[in-house]
Amino acid sequence: MKVEGRQYRTIALAEDGWSIDIIDQTALPHAFVTRRLRSLDDAAEAIRSMRVRGAPLIGATAAYGVCLALRHDASDTQLNAAIKALAETRPTAVNLAWALDRMVKTVGPASAEKRSTTAYAAAARICADDVAGCLAIAKHGARLITECWKTRGDATPIQVLTHCNAGWLATVDWGTALAGVYLAHDRGVPIHVWVDETRPRNQGAGLTAWELGQHGVPHTVVVDNAGGHLMQHGQVDMCLVGTDRTTADGDVCNKIGTYLKALAAEDNDIPFYVAAPYASIDWSGQEP
Amino acid sequence: MKVEGRQYRTIALAEDGWSIDIIDQTALPHAFVTRRLRSLDDAAEAIRSMRVRGAPLIGATAAYGVCLALRHDASDTQLNAAIKALAETRPTAVNLAWALDRMVKTVGPASAEKRSTTAYAAAARICADDVAGCLAIAKHGARLITECWKTRGDATPIQVLTHCNAGWLATVDWGTALAGVYLAHDRGVPIHVWVDETRPRNQGAGLTAWELGQHGVPHTVVVDNAGGHLMQHGQVDMCLVGTDRTTADGDVCNKIGTYLKALAAEDNDIPFYVAAPYASIDWSGQEP
Repeated sequence: MKVEGRQYRTIALAEDGWSIDIIDQTALPHAFVTRRLRSLDDAAEAIRSMRVRGAPLIGATAAYGVCLALRHDASDTQLNAAIKALAETRPTAVNLAWALDRMVKTVGPASAEKRSTTAYAAAARICADDVAGCLAIAKHGARLITECWKTRGDATPIQVLTHCNAGWLATVDWGTALAGVYLAHDRGVPIHVWVDETRPRNQGAGLTAWELGQHGVPHTVVVDNAGGHLMQHGQVDMCLVGTDRTTADGDVCNKIGTYLKALAAEDNDIPFYVAAPYASIDWSGQEP
Repeated sequence: MKVEGRQYRTIALAEDGWSIDIIDQTALPHAFVTRRLRSLDDAAEAIRSMRVRGAPLIGATAAYGVCLALRHDASDTQLNAAIKALAETRPTAVNLAWALDRMVKTVGPASAEKRSTTAYAAAARICADDVAGCLAIAKHGARLITECWKTRGDATPIQVLTHCNAGWLATVDWGTALAGVYLAHDRGVPIHVWVDETRPRNQGAGLTAWELGQHGVPHTVVVDNAGGHLMQHGQVDMCLVGTDRTTADGDVCNKIGTYLKALAAEDNDIPFYVAAPYASIDWSGQEP
């Protein structure tokens, strides 16, 4: 995604080949600030302070946190301590546990000399997989948006309501719920997004509106209370949100207030979609 | 209701016998400020700027606005101009039209010499009727709260969720939705109120929480997004709200976001009550 015309990812290996650059999301929308992570503590603090947030990005940051931890000490003790410290930073995001599990499985069997290199390769793969997954979600999302727009049968913009931030700031690139919005917009589908303010932390007003503005997608920030009224008055064609955690049965845990919008969508026969990468699915409750 | 131990009404005739004292609700909860209205313009401005708000109180203020308009000029032209100016201040509150209609019917037939006196008597009656009506609502509300608490069958506080401000600040005294809460609390029913923040103007966080605090009722302010989650987790025993306008068929128009809470209450089998005085019912759509 581009910020003022320049290509960015929310997390990337720095030019020195080992430290990690992130966008400090606590400064948005007032300032665009990047920040360099140089240690396990830096990575853990970035997650805990919500400098990085969004389930997929939390997973990617945790993976690089393992890399930073292993640079000078690749022992089992150090690996276990890093996993434990990172797992405690943001327990609700299933991607965090998923990414850490993937790191342990990849890095654990490697010899001490190779652990650091293996970790960096694994973290890079987690990021690359996330981008590829989000691009696939973008294609599904854009198809759904386009079909919904065509079915409605007039040329006015399709009205999408979203809650919280499930855009590229929540992932490494593209986003989940907003990925389809961006791709549909790029393909010429006229689109307008109702952005829930998303109290108490205002991720909609602060992050989603900023993202959409950078990409040139028309949007309006509304208080969280307004969505039901907009739906009752035919002002919403579809709802599109992300997920913190989706169970194997399909139950979705997402930002507080998502449930209220889902009820209103059902009451008004408006399609409600959850855009989820594989890593956001919690298979732990599944029957064998 | 009492503020720091002293008895107050939201609107009252001043000691001079003609000007009107109101509580300036835009200063709450940070400061308790009263303000004197001396003209039609003062009254219209107080409604428009939401120094007074809440459907019943708006009606009472409009009635006194008519009184202030007629003090020095009791002509038909002046009466009509006052009605028109006041009717435009806050068109959604049905009580405003109701109070103005009642003033026209009472004051219109009186001779020019008697119009001012008639108007003050009519406005005082509107206020007295509002207090009596709210007290009746308090009794019904307290009964429902007490029954719900007894039915639940344990001694922990009954959990009531409310949206916006339907307390005594919205009426002349007592309130509508909160009237029952106050009376039940006074009768010794243990009660805790979840107060919706009520974006965008924060009447819950700013007014309802202040009122409940003055009365000593335990309460917690929550973001508007939280109510559904609280209901899903058994933390809400009943919902109790006011109404801006209720149609003859029973449809309720109230502060933005009320609908979302009603849907969540239905989805979780939680009783949802609207406390309405007669003057908040819009009979205009009723079949003859």
